Amino acid sequence: MAELLKGAPVAAALAERTAAKAAALREKGVTPTLAILRVGERPDDLSYERGAMKRCDACGVAVRSVVLPGDVGQDELMAAIESLNEDGAVHGILLLRPLPAPLDNEAARQAIRPEKDVDGVTDGSLAGVFTGSGAGFAPCTAQAVMELLDFYHIPVAGKHAVVAGRSLVIGRPVAMLLMAAGATVTVCHSKTADLPAYTRQADVLVTAIGRMGYFGAEHIAPGQTVIDVGIHFDPDTGKMRGDVDMTAAEPVAAALTPVPGGLGAVTTAVLVSHVAEAAEKAAAGRN
Amino acid sequence: MAELLKGAPVAAALAERTAAKAAALREKGVTPTLAILRVGERPDDLSYERGAMKRCDACGVAVRSVVLPGDVGQDELMAAIESLNEDGAVHGILLLRPLPAPLDNEAARQAIRPEKDVDGVTDGSLAGVFTGSGAGFAPCTAQAVMELLDFYHIPVAGKHAVVAGRSLVIGRPVAMLLMAAGATVTVCHSKTADLPAYTRQADVLVTAIGRMGYFGAEHIAPGQTVIDVGIHFDPDTGKMRGDVDMTAAEPVAAALTPVPGGLGAVTTAVLVSHVAEAAEKAAAGRN
Repeated sequence: MAELLKGAPVAAALAERTAAKAAALREKGVTPTLAILRVGERPDDLSYERGAMKRCDACGVAVRSVVLPGDVGQDELMAAIESLNEDGAVHGILLLRPLPAPLDNEAARQAIRPEKDVDGVTDGSLAGVFTGSGAGFAPCTAQAVMELLDFYHIPVAGKHAVVAGRSLVIGRPVAMLLMAAGATVTVCHSKTADLPAYTRQADVLVTAIGRMGYFGAEHIAPGQTVIDVGIHFDPDTGKMRGDVDMTAAEPVAAALTPVPGGLGAVTTAVLVSHVAEAAEKAAAGRN
Repeated sequence: MAELLKGAPVAAALAERTAAKAAALREKGVTPTLAILRVGERPDDLSYERGAMKRCDACGVAVRSVVLPGDVGQDELMAAIESLNEDGAVHGILLLRPLPAPLDNEAARQAIRPEKDVDGVTDGSLAGVFTGSGAGFAPCTAQAVMELLDFYHIPVAGKHAVVAGRSLVIGRPVAMLLMAAGATVTVCHSKTADLPAYTRQADVLVTAIGRMGYFGAEHIAPGQTVIDVGIHFDPDTGKMRGDVDMTAAEPVAAALTPVPGGLGAVTTAVLVSHVAEAAEKAAAGRN
């Protein structure tokens, strides 16, 4: 049976470091603050927001929630972003995405001021991930994968990491982070022929294709570490599930992140750590 | 025997399109101009510069050559870049790299004004390659690989592309371009254990590790297309060679770019096409 790589202890260790940073900032009169900008009421937005708020609270990071109606116009959305950009008390901006159609995701993403881009969505942050320069902030989920591997001492250098999914939120950035850590990296996606032939070769498999329970016994090989990035709500049971069919994977894989209880908590912990970092940088810049 | 994928016809087709653009610009009184900034006298810099100048000339693109001594200071280098940034008659800047130590490659790269970054070295261009937004210019060698595959009608979508090398000049950007074209992409590098096990799986193998004649019979499998990005001067024969041992590869691979006579010509043709594009954009912006 696979070892379950729970997210909670990873998140707790990271949160402890963040809380210490936040406490130090508060002593200097700076309250690290995250603004969460949400359009509409998508269930997974709400779930992610709740998790982030809880984690912020536990770390001494303040949250300002800004909610726009689902039918908001582009101008109003851009004005909301600009106002958060200008607000010196806000250190990080989390824009919950994807935005409902017909809003322009691209324009909204790029409008966030780079130093407040704690979710790693702007070109500056993404270029930093691509070039390995360390500028900006890595997308939180991608960094969460690395934090989890690191916490559980799972070797990456010289290993074969297979990433299923090529999104800018997780697939491409996590591929770059894994490569920077020395892994040989294969990125699979919707156009990949014979997906199991690739995924079975992985030492570390990252599943991020957004299809509930898709990865079954035929995709997974003995000895693998499987990091499940998927978050879905099973319409039959109402329960949260990942991209991996846990019943099929657990007897085969060596280690596996459960869903729920896996990467989600780490992702929000990374987000909050970015807010504290952004506040530190802003405070240093003001001195 | 492998079909030899010669670069000349690919470059010629691209140059023809560029020459037409340049002629149209000249009729409007704009002479598309590339500035080549070189520090010192490295043989491969000189070779690349010669190729670029010849190609520019053939396409009706002017070249301004700026040469700094090998022991130039950082300040003087940055001033040279800034002067080219400010010069309205210069549409593209090619900074030959790597710069000799102790010059700061990173600072020099980022100093180039994005709209003149015809070699695809700034964060803006690299972010465009990473996100697929099409902003900026792709690194020329990476785009040359795609132009060559396209010219010879070699299918990429759904195929397995293996890239050996993870540099920002070629490995990482070509991986992104291949992925955007629908390939499943594996990136191998110096930390990869058992390189032949990966390279033999490729439908399209791109070799860019900078080791002369490294890829031999054990790396190459029947049916493959091998794109050799390496450029080396054999100290024994004085001849140009690639990363691939052609004698070993030719009987096995289905198709192979020769060195010399392969990708090099396409790379300079891409560079010149970028200069014409940059001049077009600059002219459009002025109107």
